[in-house]
Amino acid sequence: MTPQGTSLIGQSAVTGDQAVIRAIDPASGESLAPDYPGLDRDAVARACELAETAYATYRESSLKARAAFLEAIAAEIEALGDVLITRAMAETGLPRARLEGERGRTCGQLRLFAAVVRAGEWLDVRIDPALPERQPMPRVDLRQRHVALGPVAVFGASNFPLAFSVAGGDSASALAAGCPVVVKAHSAHPGTSELVGRAIQQAVAKCNLPEGVFSLLFGSGKEIGQALVADPRIQAVGFTGSRAGGLALMQTAQNRPQPIPVYAEMSSINPVFLLPEALEARGKEIAEGFVGSLNMGAGQFCTNPGLVIGVKGAALDAFVAAAAEAVGGSAAQTMLTPGIHAAYADGVGQLAGEAREIARAPAGEGPHQCQTALFATRAGDFLASEALQAEVFGAASLVIECDDLAEMHAVAEALEGQLTATLQLDDGDLDAARMLLPVLERKAGRVLVNGWPTGVEVCHAMVHGGPFPATSDARSTSVGSAAIRRFLRPVCYQNLPAGLLPEALQDDNPFNVTRLVDGKRE
Amino acid sequence: MTPQGTSLIGQSAVTGDQAVIRAIDPASGESLAPDYPGLDRDAVARACELAETAYATYRESSLKARAAFLEAIAAEIEALGDVLITRAMAETGLPRARLEGERGRTCGQLRLFAAVVRAGEWLDVRIDPALPERQPMPRVDLRQRHVALGPVAVFGASNFPLAFSVAGGDSASALAAGCPVVVKAHSAHPGTSELVGRAIQQAVAKCNLPEGVFSLLFGSGKEIGQALVADPRIQAVGFTGSRAGGLALMQTAQNRPQPIPVYAEMSSINPVFLLPEALEARGKEIAEGFVGSLNMGAGQFCTNPGLVIGVKGAALDAFVAAAAEAVGGSAAQTMLTPGIHAAYADGVGQLAGEAREIARAPAGEGPHQCQTALFATRAGDFLASEALQAEVFGAASLVIECDDLAEMHAVAEALEGQLTATLQLDDGDLDAARMLLPVLERKAGRVLVNGWPTGVEVCHAMVHGGPFPATSDARSTSVGSAAIRRFLRPVCYQNLPAGLLPEALQDDNPFNVTRLVDGKRE
Repeated sequence: MTPQGTSLIGQSAVTGDQAVIRAIDPASGESLAPDYPGLDRDAVARACELAETAYATYRESSLKARAAFLEAIAAEIEALGDVLITRAMAETGLPRARLEGERGRTCGQLRLFAAVVRAGEWLDVRIDPALPERQPMPRVDLRQRHVALGPVAVFGASNFPLAFSVAGGDSASALAAGCPVVVKAHSAHPGTSELVGRAIQQAVAKCNLPEGVFSLLFGSGKEIGQALVADPRIQAVGFTGSRAGGLALMQTAQNRPQPIPVYAEMSSINPVFLLPEALEARGKEIAEGFVGSLNMGAGQFCTNPGLVIGVKGAALDAFVAAAAEAVGGSAAQTMLTPGIHAAYADGVGQLAGEAREIARAPAGEGPHQCQTALFATRAGDFLASEALQAEVFGAASLVIECDDLAEMHAVAEALEGQLTATLQLDDGDLDAARMLLPVLERKAGRVLVNGWPTGVEVCHAMVHGGPFPATSDARSTSVGSAAIRRFLRPVCYQNLPAGLLPEALQDDNPFNVTRLVDGKRE
Repeated sequence: MTPQGTSLIGQSAVTGDQAVIRAIDPASGESLAPDYPGLDRDAVARACELAETAYATYRESSLKARAAFLEAIAAEIEALGDVLITRAMAETGLPRARLEGERGRTCGQLRLFAAVVRAGEWLDVRIDPALPERQPMPRVDLRQRHVALGPVAVFGASNFPLAFSVAGGDSASALAAGCPVVVKAHSAHPGTSELVGRAIQQAVAKCNLPEGVFSLLFGSGKEIGQALVADPRIQAVGFTGSRAGGLALMQTAQNRPQPIPVYAEMSSINPVFLLPEALEARGKEIAEGFVGSLNMGAGQFCTNPGLVIGVKGAALDAFVAAAAEAVGGSAAQTMLTPGIHAAYADGVGQLAGEAREIARAPAGEGPHQCQTALFATRAGDFLASEALQAEVFGAASLVIECDDLAEMHAVAEALEGQLTATLQLDDGDLDAARMLLPVLERKAGRVLVNGWPTGVEVCHAMVHGGPFPATSDARSTSVGSAAIRRFLRPVCYQNLPAGLLPEALQDDNPFNVTRLVDGKRE
């Protein structure tokens, strides 16, 4: 299969007639065929109409059928073979090993959600049986399950062209919940998007599902995305990208006659706190781990460690020196797009204006390459500057020098919401950590000890989320099995005859799911 | 204890110096002492600051301590004795039996949440243990629990001066979640609010909790409420009231530098579908049940049946005749406030302009009384009129005459989001019910068969919620134990040493809660 330059509306391949998107190989600056002409608003409406039609049956598909569909998507993606990897390499500048790993993660994620669908915990079945003899009033029979919200709009991210894009976490969790998905393709990797889209399209057909379960739309600029979020049939939005982009979608979603939830993952600088004993004992090792994390994917991870906080002194100086050495030895890396590289250069320039430059990686040979950058500033200056809290997307980080642990605490308190917060600590640091932990819990979706925030495990306990502006909705996660909850709502059934009750709620528990019966877990 | 005319900020009683609120006895039109001078914005900020301080410790209070606090509130409310009931009767025009029942429900609700807190399901503990040998990459130890969002603003409703007000469902669920609560008192029942507020204040003191766990603010107009929602320390909002009021709070919450979730329960007309066999067999009985539900609390229930849909013919005519007779025999009832009565009179006037009046209850002797009103119109006219879908708060309902079941289905499809949808059916109606059920599930938070929507059981399976505009957030419920989830967010802990792990996540499961370990329920 090779990319054809088409959008996918249900089972049809559709060639738009609006402004054209063309991928650019960031490693060469050359554009890649084919052209992707954008769709118009009518095409958006058609995709939403198909999704609405599909919703009627897809949301009640059996747990088995839905799980099999998710597994079929994974199999179809794998069946694309190397064409997917080579196209993604050309469109993103990311290396083969990374993209092969990301494909594994994407397919593993789909299979995890298949298992989650089968287990049925997400239904959250609750049964309060009738109590006809209760005084002063009898109780009627009341049963609750969760149902799919409706068609979901998904906006893929540029930095994970597989795992956070067309068949990424948002699509997988929405499909798992029983929601048809309409994806607005990211313009940075159209060919990759189309290939994965065709794999999903194929899986829809093979599983005999209604075609509207999945559509993939191309459109340059913001119009198509805004039209999608404004469409009355869309009932929720998943987005990973910039703060400005997420805020714009939140606004559109709130201004609809019927407001809808937006799950936007936007902006995080992922602070790392170096506690004194750990810094003293293993400063050099921590510095190397830090720069390794900073350099991952050219720093284009949402969990990139953009802030390192320590108490000033010889140990911090030694850490900074070791980090500077590692930064100096870092190879230049091609960034995802020319635009991202330009924004990175701007952001580094702004940091340079406000903070001391500690080290910069040497320039490479290709265009659009990031040179890892390390800056430092005093906590007092950081606390006084809003600009220093802004995310620089790419390998750049800022060391904050605090006078003491109290000032470190003040820095923690001043932070905006984050995806992650990390503590580097040794046994003697536990008291200091206990002071910081309640602050960090409030600021971040995930708190780590002696690790690095890059690398997000796809599992049941993961939270890839966090308070605003890390995300638009701290009450959920975009990675891990709990993400299915984003796309569900509870419905209560009062006194329904057995013949009308949804299968999940029937007395004999045909789905064999855990249930809360009269408040007791069974 | 008698009402003093004060706000409560933490353990202090505070007398404002802004415009005065004074309760009005709607049965006599006379105003009731004392005056409640409104607070200024500084007082709002003080209450939020205290709440923020309290949050630090209250959110980590032990399950036992928090449950005991909720039970202490219930006991303190009961200890107020008859002074609470007589004051609430005077302020609302509601009869004694209703208010005594509502007090029982309010205290029962607090005790239910105490049990929920102790059981600890709400923590949603998930543990994915480390897999150091996993290939190609080891897995680190990951654990998830839910934590309280932060201080919550609660806006009580006028129609349930106890169960949806100062110590009502929103306060109980937020306190259960570990969130301090700042209540903006409803101006319609200030004395009732103060008495209940003092009971909570007392419980805070007796339980040795930080005073900021609870504050109660009086202020006329919208300024204090808007200031409260805009305060940066407030992290979520619970509201029950009008659509316009809810929308205004949603707007304020979205326009904050950090947007926050708003749980507004606003507007619902609670359609009742009369299926043919049931209508034929028990039309008269259904008509009596319907008018009984319509008249409850002078129709001032959010679940009041404001819409009845049937297929035209002799059976529907007989139902309408029986309902008209019951309406004609309904006693006039005092409404909650002069303002609500005026809005009711307007709404009934508008219905009279757009639909046929079927029956009207006779006038009573007091002021501000509702006379139950029944109207009818053809489905075609209903589908063409937006005004006919607007909620009339109070005992008024509209019968929709459909040509056939297909038109009944079209009416269902055209409805806005609802708290409830009801089916009256007999065995022969099951096929028709199966056609409607998927539509109703999408429109409503609760679907009932052969019952009436008024009367909301406080239990585990209840959903008192539903799609917009019934509520601002269909993903939750404002009644029942699942309401605790509104005020929680997940946090993931990666690789924390045992000495730093929150108690809920420790290996030996000290809280003895159900856990999801490696995806398996234990």
